[in-house]
Amino acid sequence: MVVGASRRDFLRSVGISGGAGVLYSTMGALGLAPVPDARAEAYRPPQRSDFTLTGRTGKKVVILGAGIAGLATAYELGKAGYDCQILEAKDRPGGRNWTVRGGTTLTDLDGRTQTASFSRGQYMNAGPARLPQSHVTLEYCRELDVPLEVFTNQNANAYIHHENSPALAGRPVRWRTAKADVYGYVSELLAKATDQGALDAELTGEDKERLLAFLQNFGAIQGRADGWAYTGTDRRGYSVEPGAAFEEGTVLGPPPSMSDVIASGIGQRFSFEFGYDQAMLMFQPVGGMDAIPYALAEAIGRRKITYGAEVTAVTNLDDGAEVTWRSSSGRTRTEHADFVVAAMPPMVLARLNHNLGSDVTAALRYAAPQAVGKIGLEYRSRWWEKDEHIYGGITSTDTDLSTVWYPSYGYHGRRGTLIGYYNFGANATAYSDLLHAQRVERAISRGVRIHGEKYRSELAASFSVAWHRTPYIEAGWVGWPSQSGPEYRLLNQPAGHVYFAGDWLSHVIAWQHGAFTSARKVVTEIHERVMAA
Amino acid sequence: MVVGASRRDFLRSVGISGGAGVLYSTMGALGLAPVPDARAEAYRPPQRSDFTLTGRTGKKVVILGAGIAGLATAYELGKAGYDCQILEAKDRPGGRNWTVRGGTTLTDLDGRTQTASFSRGQYMNAGPARLPQSHVTLEYCRELDVPLEVFTNQNANAYIHHENSPALAGRPVRWRTAKADVYGYVSELLAKATDQGALDAELTGEDKERLLAFLQNFGAIQGRADGWAYTGTDRRGYSVEPGAAFEEGTVLGPPPSMSDVIASGIGQRFSFEFGYDQAMLMFQPVGGMDAIPYALAEAIGRRKITYGAEVTAVTNLDDGAEVTWRSSSGRTRTEHADFVVAAMPPMVLARLNHNLGSDVTAALRYAAPQAVGKIGLEYRSRWWEKDEHIYGGITSTDTDLSTVWYPSYGYHGRRGTLIGYYNFGANATAYSDLLHAQRVERAISRGVRIHGEKYRSELAASFSVAWHRTPYIEAGWVGWPSQSGPEYRLLNQPAGHVYFAGDWLSHVIAWQHGAFTSARKVVTEIHERVMAA
Repeated sequence: MVVGASRRDFLRSVGISGGAGVLYSTMGALGLAPVPDARAEAYRPPQRSDFTLTGRTGKKVVILGAGIAGLATAYELGKAGYDCQILEAKDRPGGRNWTVRGGTTLTDLDGRTQTASFSRGQYMNAGPARLPQSHVTLEYCRELDVPLEVFTNQNANAYIHHENSPALAGRPVRWRTAKADVYGYVSELLAKATDQGALDAELTGEDKERLLAFLQNFGAIQGRADGWAYTGTDRRGYSVEPGAAFEEGTVLGPPPSMSDVIASGIGQRFSFEFGYDQAMLMFQPVGGMDAIPYALAEAIGRRKITYGAEVTAVTNLDDGAEVTWRSSSGRTRTEHADFVVAAMPPMVLARLNHNLGSDVTAALRYAAPQAVGKIGLEYRSRWWEKDEHIYGGITSTDTDLSTVWYPSYGYHGRRGTLIGYYNFGANATAYSDLLHAQRVERAISRGVRIHGEKYRSELAASFSVAWHRTPYIEAGWVGWPSQSGPEYRLLNQPAGHVYFAGDWLSHVIAWQHGAFTSARKVVTEIHERVMAA
Repeated sequence: MVVGASRRDFLRSVGISGGAGVLYSTMGALGLAPVPDARAEAYRPPQRSDFTLTGRTGKKVVILGAGIAGLATAYELGKAGYDCQILEAKDRPGGRNWTVRGGTTLTDLDGRTQTASFSRGQYMNAGPARLPQSHVTLEYCRELDVPLEVFTNQNANAYIHHENSPALAGRPVRWRTAKADVYGYVSELLAKATDQGALDAELTGEDKERLLAFLQNFGAIQGRADGWAYTGTDRRGYSVEPGAAFEEGTVLGPPPSMSDVIASGIGQRFSFEFGYDQAMLMFQPVGGMDAIPYALAEAIGRRKITYGAEVTAVTNLDDGAEVTWRSSSGRTRTEHADFVVAAMPPMVLARLNHNLGSDVTAALRYAAPQAVGKIGLEYRSRWWEKDEHIYGGITSTDTDLSTVWYPSYGYHGRRGTLIGYYNFGANATAYSDLLHAQRVERAISRGVRIHGEKYRSELAASFSVAWHRTPYIEAGWVGWPSQSGPEYRLLNQPAGHVYFAGDWLSHVIAWQHGAFTSARKVVTEIHERVMAA
């Protein structure tokens, strides 16, 4: 038995009997985990040395799909010398990790073709666009030398635009202003209640004084003598910026009434920023998210990936598995392998000819495809920076746009590319039902209500993707009605020599982290099976 | 009268009579200000064409100091062809805008010399380090083609470390965890008070229901049936990250008690993030903050700046002003000019020989110099990224470090440079009283309590600056006991042909914005005087 495997086995057995807490404190005791927050897995890639003195070698593995899960599977198995072959229907790696630049084309399932005419240096990340600090995706960026920069997921200068709320309707409010007002009024209310003794059952006298001190600071409210009133603060922003000599600046104000602020619903937006996966800081690869799949593909080796290969059948055999596919020239081929890893979207997999059983087909169909859309809008000028001082970030709306994203790259450049909508469900299908030109017109008509006519007049180019209408992908992501039922369990096991991998087989769906960790799991399982054989 | 000037005069007169609101809506009507948030000044640089047909030409101006105010004065006056000469005592432009790299040396007022041994590509911005989106500094970056990247002023993964609080003492808490707990308990308390009717005098029934809905979302608290209790949330973070298959992750928990969270004082840190000048997004020049002064110096022209020039006297004359200075070779010279702009720190100016009056000297001394210190710590590895998932941002402490900054550049690189302290007042003098090696030892001993022994063992190089002990600068910045008294007013007027400029003559002290706007003001005044003569 190799040392690495036994250490892993030991850790795994501790993990199973004692839970993750015990696993990681044990690892800490072993000097393996000096980190305050532990990872889901103490992942150890297969290595060539694992085979030393065992008489074993890397097996042949055919991988269906060159999305992140498929690429990561080939990359990790390749470390131990497995003979991997990826079959990819499209002409590029990455799957939904797709960066659209000038010249990129897309023909959707409705037969409509778009070709992007973005300027040199301009791009949109049509799929994943942000990397949280805790995701293993960043570890792959480190390992593969993919340079990173901050993705601007939050900006105090971006807007909240609630057109349909009972108050402040139609008036874009900057995030900083919204926070100042909501935190101000919340602090006023809680200070009053506390000071009047309404919370004496919850708070000691000392608690109360400390809480009141916190609220004065947090909400920028007046003191006890002034009834804890919130009357505005320079945190709202300035209508005239402070400057030289006697220019103290003019604070934006006065704030709307408490009742209007509550009714506007702007405060409902704040929790987005506290989300585990959405809190800043976040990151993106320099030059486009597809730097990750291209770096993986490069590391795997170009001749190991066959593009334009449309898989039609998967057959589990006693001694392995067989894959039938059609090449871009129209020839049908059959490939035999020791193992197959199916790293395609489940609803696409469900339609293959296979002998894995009807329960597998049913399980694959159990995952519900989600409609997701995104549009990129290139502008002739970066008016959001120059005129509105918005250098990146996201404006939240209650329209069918959902959100508008300002670019996290190319600051102060001549041109820039916004994401004009990133929407889901009914909003996404409302747009995907339209021709691209109509999508643009509809998105622009909403954006003008936030930013004015320049939102139309400065537009230079555009490109839209409806993931649920995109060949070989067919969804932004999938949702499981249940991840504790038999369907999900079934697909997390091999069907003979056929394994399944993808973000859809994780608890981090719609993130590359889910795809990477799913690939690691399958890689570990295959390698253990080979080592145990 | 030139068109530009009359337009400016018109705008100014509107501004004076009707306030800034009228000024900017008038500008909007004129098509000058399509921006929702207006600037302090509709600044218009002097132009060569202003002199056309007037028989006037740019005058000779000697500028004392090549800090941001001095550089900006020469740069702006240069646009109209003024003959500017900057005298700078140091051997570089920028003043406090100073980027320390390998080889940078500093001999302080106590005669102690440090030479930085930072690796290639590593640097610390010893002075200003962050640019808010609203500051004119960004406009200069645009105009001068200084590339920008995000400065990571806030990071949910950075820590709040309160050693001296009554609760949670000595335990670093991530910002995300602190927010989850404080917002959770605040929401629980306010929901209880609201639901019990304690705030019926403040809130209508509709307000109450909307407020409760907000609090459930904002605090991730239980509903009415469960007494609005805060019991933890995945916003706190995970001890085991969610991942593939059945790994749902293990949420950090349980949260400390409400009383402990309140007593810890962690919530007192949050308002930093809402500050008008500190809210994200913020920016920095790529490669170091000194890209700004070097770009200004380049635009001004190298031969217009004399380094190593120590000014000793300023004399106002009937027909201009005279400056006496000592060159680096020790020669004393006297320069005659039409105007002098004194853009040096006030307490340094106060010691020059001059004939501007004792009230000027007293006013210059009225500004109180502030002690400010910073230390750069280069590490052999980026353990904060690799082990703790902190990619930039700031840890707040209640020790004499004040804050620890993780670098906003070079992510995933081999080495990285932290700011080990950025402190003020008594904390800054406590460190400046020490030799550099002692400063390092003291800073490290505090940092180890946050990050463990690697904070010591991985250290590779260091450099510290105590601005109040730095020649020709002598303070981090100054504070005015009053900015509405006669002293401040006096220095915002010319003393004959001698003008004063600097961030210290603004309402944005300690920011480059203050220096730039002060320079613009003086430039405008000189140009108007020349045009009116």
